[in-house]
Amino acid sequence: MSVLRIAEIFGPTIQGEGALIGEPTVFVRTGGCDYRCSWCDSLHAVDTEFRHKWASTSTQEVWAKVQSLSRNRPLTVSLSGGNPAIQDFKDLIALGHAQGYRFACETQGSIAKPWFADLDTLVLSPKPPSSGETVDWDAFDTCLTAANGAKQIVIKIVIFDDADYTWARANADNYLHLPIFLQPGNLNVDPDVAVDPQTLADKLLWLVDKTVADRWFAPRVLPQLHVLLWGNKRGV
Amino acid sequence: MSVLRIAEIFGPTIQGEGALIGEPTVFVRTGGCDYRCSWCDSLHAVDTEFRHKWASTSTQEVWAKVQSLSRNRPLTVSLSGGNPAIQDFKDLIALGHAQGYRFACETQGSIAKPWFADLDTLVLSPKPPSSGETVDWDAFDTCLTAANGAKQIVIKIVIFDDADYTWARANADNYLHLPIFLQPGNLNVDPDVAVDPQTLADKLLWLVDKTVADRWFAPRVLPQLHVLLWGNKRGV
Repeated sequence: MSVLRIAEIFGPTIQGEGALIGEPTVFVRTGGCDYRCSWCDSLHAVDTEFRHKWASTSTQEVWAKVQSLSRNRPLTVSLSGGNPAIQDFKDLIALGHAQGYRFACETQGSIAKPWFADLDTLVLSPKPPSSGETVDWDAFDTCLTAANGAKQIVIKIVIFDDADYTWARANADNYLHLPIFLQPGNLNVDPDVAVDPQTLADKLLWLVDKTVADRWFAPRVLPQLHVLLWGNKRGV
Repeated sequence: MSVLRIAEIFGPTIQGEGALIGEPTVFVRTGGCDYRCSWCDSLHAVDTEFRHKWASTSTQEVWAKVQSLSRNRPLTVSLSGGNPAIQDFKDLIALGHAQGYRFACETQGSIAKPWFADLDTLVLSPKPPSSGETVDWDAFDTCLTAANGAKQIVIKIVIFDDADYTWARANADNYLHLPIFLQPGNLNVDPDVAVDPQTLADKLLWLVDKTVADRWFAPRVLPQLHVLLWGNKRGV
């Protein structure tokens, strides 16, 4: 079975964002990413400065940890990162599915993997201009093809500014067959700095007002509940 | 076509809670309710004191208002109240479906209607002990039967205290085949009193902590985003 590079495994808690918002979840966060977004909120799983903290862990060990955290009660396991698509989760998904667990994966859509087709939910999260990255839409479409067979495929886009919004709107038109979720970006990602709930509410309101003013009804607009609940603290 | 008693029609805005959280929605709030929950946040659509404000409105007029608000762009129409199941929405749903609109209805599950089967989403929201009401589970099951054919049926339970939580957990076991959503109750329902976002966050955290401590992973746990965004202001 595969060896996985793991930054952290934590939960159960609720999924804070996107299609599965509110869903009880154990998070398996992998180390390593092919992107380096300017506003990344998970640098401890991205920046190679933290590489020595990413534990090489067997699939069996990862699965044992998930079982222990959930006390063997099936729930959703979210594969996140970094970019989890760098690694091979086929075996972990098979182990979990055999016990009634469900699997979601969140990735930017830059690298396709055959195990995408085994997922319950694939969240493709193309990064807007403010990230400093440029989306390779051919690679993105290859991810969609690889995920054929997954129970649910959704698109999630983080919006920091007007340029991101315009970009999201233009590109979403190419994927009208998929559910799309927008969320306001969070520039305050320091785990030691308290987050003001009113600031989060104001940002969400800004994004809701924009979509409503444009009568753009395709996306659902959601906040990051985990930031509301726990600020930028890790492991919750 | 049916004549409807309407308390207010407003939107588009986002749905603030439950299965369709974040979804762009126009709300059609009917007047009149067979319940009188102690903590009702929509008394203007429930208490007969406000009855003279509920306009008798033709289905065609309601539909024209929805079209005008949405500028003829299809979105989700939420039928709420009061208890919308008192009234006859069959014609409105047919008009809207013909134009590509979707319909959700939120009701406590005390009165069944044949048009439940035409809905895209039926939210059954049985009221916990803190409401002062007592659920008639036979009537509730009759609603489920009537809704056979609806695209999606979900249960949503508002939780104010430990007794509500215990009640929800016991009763949810009878409906394991349905998605269930929990949300913390809001005791501050005065539209003129500002809502503290931190208080909302704290209540959500309380409920998340309870479900996680019990490893009760069936429900999704969500806040009322509209209260976070707009307090208890009406018409948003």
